Amino acid sequence: MKLGIVGLGLIGGSLGLDLRDRGFEVLGVSRRQSTCDLAVAMGVADRASLDLSLLAEADLIFICTPIAKIAPTIEQLIPYLRPETIITDVGSVKAPIVSDCAALWDNFVGGHPMAGTANSGVEAAERNLFQGATYVITPTEKTSVAALNKVKDLACSLGSSVIITAPTVHDRAVAWISHLPVMVSAGLISAVTAETDSQALKLAISLASSGFRDTSRVGGGNPELGLMMAQYNREELLRSMKQYRHNLDRFIELIEAENWQALEDILKSTRAKRPDFL
Amino acid sequence: MKLGIVGLGLIGGSLGLDLRDRGFEVLGVSRRQSTCDLAVAMGVADRASLDLSLLAEADLIFICTPIAKIAPTIEQLIPYLRPETIITDVGSVKAPIVSDCAALWDNFVGGHPMAGTANSGVEAAERNLFQGATYVITPTEKTSVAALNKVKDLACSLGSSVIITAPTVHDRAVAWISHLPVMVSAGLISAVTAETDSQALKLAISLASSGFRDTSRVGGGNPELGLMMAQYNREELLRSMKQYRHNLDRFIELIEAENWQALEDILKSTRAKRPDFL
Repeated sequence: MKLGIVGLGLIGGSLGLDLRDRGFEVLGVSRRQSTCDLAVAMGVADRASLDLSLLAEADLIFICTPIAKIAPTIEQLIPYLRPETIITDVGSVKAPIVSDCAALWDNFVGGHPMAGTANSGVEAAERNLFQGATYVITPTEKTSVAALNKVKDLACSLGSSVIITAPTVHDRAVAWISHLPVMVSAGLISAVTAETDSQALKLAISLASSGFRDTSRVGGGNPELGLMMAQYNREELLRSMKQYRHNLDRFIELIEAENWQALEDILKSTRAKRPDFL
Repeated sequence: MKLGIVGLGLIGGSLGLDLRDRGFEVLGVSRRQSTCDLAVAMGVADRASLDLSLLAEADLIFICTPIAKIAPTIEQLIPYLRPETIITDVGSVKAPIVSDCAALWDNFVGGHPMAGTANSGVEAAERNLFQGATYVITPTEKTSVAALNKVKDLACSLGSSVIITAPTVHDRAVAWISHLPVMVSAGLISAVTAETDSQALKLAISLASSGFRDTSRVGGGNPELGLMMAQYNREELLRSMKQYRHNLDRFIELIEAENWQALEDILKSTRAKRPDFL
């Protein structure tokens, strides 16, 4: 089986390294010749090109571009493909992508390998990035079972645990554990830096330690990623933010009312429930 | 100079180890005989007793009890003390403590060594815990300069950087960087665990990784500590929570309005400002 990868960054590059190690021939496409050259030199791809026509030979293609480019890339690919070619993606939001891409190509299977590092670009690609990670695959009722099984087998071969679920369930879950935390954390940085008491702000800056560092970490990350989450998972993110605001309002009410017993009960419950997520 | 320590836990015990290393005679008081015995065996104190009268000999006394016990302990100590004895505390909120304790004892100086570990009890005491930490001292206009300087010299001898500021400035700053993050983080755990879509909740639990782990860490901590922050720093915590809610509401508005440029500007600014706090 020949595999194609469009977008040779951290995820595409790491997929290429692992899939070549497992004996597949890997064909890569990037927008830059220097990335193509580096990908071949690093062993990410057997051959790489700026031209999507290289993937005419591929049996299964991973689209590893930024989310906004996934459907447009598939549109550009279609003229070169045989109808039996399978396309999958690695985007971190699923419902809108699956809806757009399945309309373009019957053999499309949505996917989201939940792995990454703080680095980006093909030079950041690493072997075994997906080992032990969760790989979510999001078929719909119309997805071909044969195509789904091919993507699943590849994900398993990377050492990932595969979860198969609906695109909307995926998006709701990642809103809670990935997208909402970015907004909650960015809100903390925004709020403290808006303090107008300059003496207190200066002291806050010098006293901040691990508690502030951890709570603010994801809110101080890549703005393009935060923006992408809000744009592509807007509805689920808003739903989770409103539920969160409701919980925050409840905390404020209890502290205003000095209802310490109820506040303690909540804090005991958050301590008890957090380990489920770790 | 003889030093007294009331409350031989992590902080009191670690103070005792360092201060004895620096040549001071240390007298400890605890509520439990087993703690007194362990403190002497570990080198935390030269002598230790259940009885506050032991501290009649002390020139300077650290009150290292839970916040609620600081003023009551001073009241019980007073019958044994000479007027020139200096009392300081290590509580993590300052305005209410300084106000109560300065009314009880002229030579009171509020303090907050910002150090700790995840452990508690005298058995968790460690040498050099305060090395490189910030030690905030919060005098008022009425605080004796001689008493302030003695506390400051001891804090410096521990290797801490000393910051001298007003109790209210301290409390406003710690609301931002320590107490608000606990509520923001606990709110996240409360909100996600209230999800009624059981399929999405189950998937969220299995997908949660480092982003959720870090953002939820302080909200899943000791409930007594979170409660204490809310009780003793209520006014400043509420002020910071309301400012935070305002910022969160702004995020929700922008996402609802699909005002991506404004959201991106905020996320760029949170990325740019966070390093100031690290």
